[in-house]
Amino acid sequence: MSGTRLTSRDIRSESRLVVMRALLAAGESTRSDLAEATGLSLGTVSTIVQDLLKFGIIAESGQLSSGIGRPTTGLRLNADRGRVVGVYVEDRYLEATVFDAALGELATVEAASDAAVAEADEVIAWIDRTLETALERAQAKREDVIGVGILLPGGMQRPVKGATAPDAIWLHFDRLLDTLGLPVVVDNPLKAIATAELWLGAGRRVASAVAVSLGYGVGAGIIQDGAVVRGATNAAGEWGHSLLVFDGRQCQCGRKGCVEAYVGIPGLRTTLAEIAPGHPLAEGVDALGEGPEGFDLVAALADAAKNGDRAAIATMERSAHYLGAALTDLVAILNPEVIALRGWAEWPVWRERIAPIVRRRVLEDSPGDAAAGLAIELSPTCGMEGIAAIALERFMRDIGLVTTREIPAL
Amino acid sequence: MSGTRLTSRDIRSESRLVVMRALLAAGESTRSDLAEATGLSLGTVSTIVQDLLKFGIIAESGQLSSGIGRPTTGLRLNADRGRVVGVYVEDRYLEATVFDAALGELATVEAASDAAVAEADEVIAWIDRTLETALERAQAKREDVIGVGILLPGGMQRPVKGATAPDAIWLHFDRLLDTLGLPVVVDNPLKAIATAELWLGAGRRVASAVAVSLGYGVGAGIIQDGAVVRGATNAAGEWGHSLLVFDGRQCQCGRKGCVEAYVGIPGLRTTLAEIAPGHPLAEGVDALGEGPEGFDLVAALADAAKNGDRAAIATMERSAHYLGAALTDLVAILNPEVIALRGWAEWPVWRERIAPIVRRRVLEDSPGDAAAGLAIELSPTCGMEGIAAIALERFMRDIGLVTTREIPAL
Repeated sequence: MSGTRLTSRDIRSESRLVVMRALLAAGESTRSDLAEATGLSLGTVSTIVQDLLKFGIIAESGQLSSGIGRPTTGLRLNADRGRVVGVYVEDRYLEATVFDAALGELATVEAASDAAVAEADEVIAWIDRTLETALERAQAKREDVIGVGILLPGGMQRPVKGATAPDAIWLHFDRLLDTLGLPVVVDNPLKAIATAELWLGAGRRVASAVAVSLGYGVGAGIIQDGAVVRGATNAAGEWGHSLLVFDGRQCQCGRKGCVEAYVGIPGLRTTLAEIAPGHPLAEGVDALGEGPEGFDLVAALADAAKNGDRAAIATMERSAHYLGAALTDLVAILNPEVIALRGWAEWPVWRERIAPIVRRRVLEDSPGDAAAGLAIELSPTCGMEGIAAIALERFMRDIGLVTTREIPAL
Repeated sequence: MSGTRLTSRDIRSESRLVVMRALLAAGESTRSDLAEATGLSLGTVSTIVQDLLKFGIIAESGQLSSGIGRPTTGLRLNADRGRVVGVYVEDRYLEATVFDAALGELATVEAASDAAVAEADEVIAWIDRTLETALERAQAKREDVIGVGILLPGGMQRPVKGATAPDAIWLHFDRLLDTLGLPVVVDNPLKAIATAELWLGAGRRVASAVAVSLGYGVGAGIIQDGAVVRGATNAAGEWGHSLLVFDGRQCQCGRKGCVEAYVGIPGLRTTLAEIAPGHPLAEGVDALGEGPEGFDLVAALADAAKNGDRAAIATMERSAHYLGAALTDLVAILNPEVIALRGWAEWPVWRERIAPIVRRRVLEDSPGDAAAGLAIELSPTCGMEGIAAIALERFMRDIGLVTTREIPAL
């Protein structure tokens, strides 16, 4: 009999995270309310609460009176257990956000560079410096930090080119660890948005959800049965590189016809160029698209549509059909209760021009009753919260309270 | 705080199924080997084994000598705990298979009807009669039956037309229960093939797999983290109705461009008709496609290709590209360790002409390293085994050993 574990979900320890998430969602709760919320027995919840209290992960918050019977002890996540830092790294942009141990945001520092920062020592020093500044702003000390989560752009899991900031991190991870002197976990944006949704978004109320990110690149973070779907190599969720059009537009990934080539921001521009060749917004890749993910183009398109620009309106509408079709595929395959969008769906133009088409298309095209109860909504969470939650989960593992299988990115 | 359960996986009871599956995979095992195989502690396994012994689900099988130390007690699933029956129902075709409680097949009875059997009493009587014959052939008595699993074709979850055998079952489920006098569970083929894969196929060695069915219709049964992905309304896995070609071929589901319209058996015929209009195999929907899922066409195409028919060869090759592209989408979104195929992939033409193209396309087009370790293989399981396993799981719930959330189809 092989020793291979057939599930990455350790049944003994997972319930501890389930209780923590239920407690975070409730703010303050009691053992019996936690049992009701999680479906665990009161006995199991009591044992878990005892463990979490012992390690200072949760704290008692005085007596709660329910109006009936004697008052019971209130519980909440212990925000002061330590500090968790999320770090987002690109070649020219760095962001560090300090959270408390209940995932409350305390301070954010952004740093930009005119030239790409790719040499390993330079990248590591930049991270170290920015993290230090963020901690100062949060009035936190380095010894307070119980975990650092590093969010790398794209679907990057491994060094591929050797001359970018993310590559420097993968190739010189030991030096990064030495310099920071802190526990570090690295993960990709799709796992971060799924984890954010699990701890702070739709995952609080439903068992199956898909967090969809619409930026320069697009992708999906998948929650099924209350857990993040990672797949065999932590690469699940690359919906942006599933097909929309067989042998269609060239995608930057090398494949043709990917969803991303139509509903990623450069794809919006291509659609505009197809509808109105020579349109000012269809040119000028330099003038526009300057933001970290080219959201300037979305803003400009939205403004143009608002001012009656027919090509901009048509671009928005055609993009809505593309997106609706692509989301329908997620519904067909995953049948989630919620699709939580972020990225260019957050622009006001979404609600007026795009959302109605997307919703109609998803409802009409989804197989059977798969979309009958589906909610398509904007996510209240961000990837930085997700990577912080991943760092918190990693801390739980470091102290022995969670024993999940080692996954590629952690 | 809401009482909604955020996971359908009951952490307390799920480990019992995990131990049962590990035991089925091993044939015979010991407590310590089961602990190693499942990742559960020896203490947990011992408790579970005690429960399963008490309810007769497993049996001791004498002393095993490991060569070192004293002999330990061997354990195996107790095949004689009872009988499980799988029933497959179409309007003109009925099949009943009797299994023992270790999912060993004992007897199968097929029944065909010249006219559609759609009136409720008629359908129910037909099922009852066929089940009785199958039990006789398996030398089993009705009181031995611990569960009946009914597999309905298509993705059918609810009555939609009102004049088919499956509709009769949904609309008159109470009468079916009264007549059979046995515990019955109904589920769809995608959940059945996923469950078969979990108990008897790739799910024995990997945590994430997709069982793909290629018949008249096509679909995917999804396993993630050692459990079947059901989705919000038990409709997950409808990959056959995800897009291959935006605004492409009309699919029978109403949507345009679905995977099924290209790699379902009628889709193969359409491809042939596009390549060689007037080709004899592209006509004659009546003459061919007579089998339950039209596999006669696949056999005829395979024969023609073998005999050098260029149009048939081109059809197989183009279909391979379609299938490769569609499977790549599953890899992009789910990143499984194994794709296990059944249906027309079982024809010899698969290995020679189709598989190499499919494999190359999946490897080339999958994002990043998502397909690096992927195995694409033929499944050793069938849907009937899956519905029997679902009935066995349901029996575990009936006797209180499993407490999963009520899911729509059960």
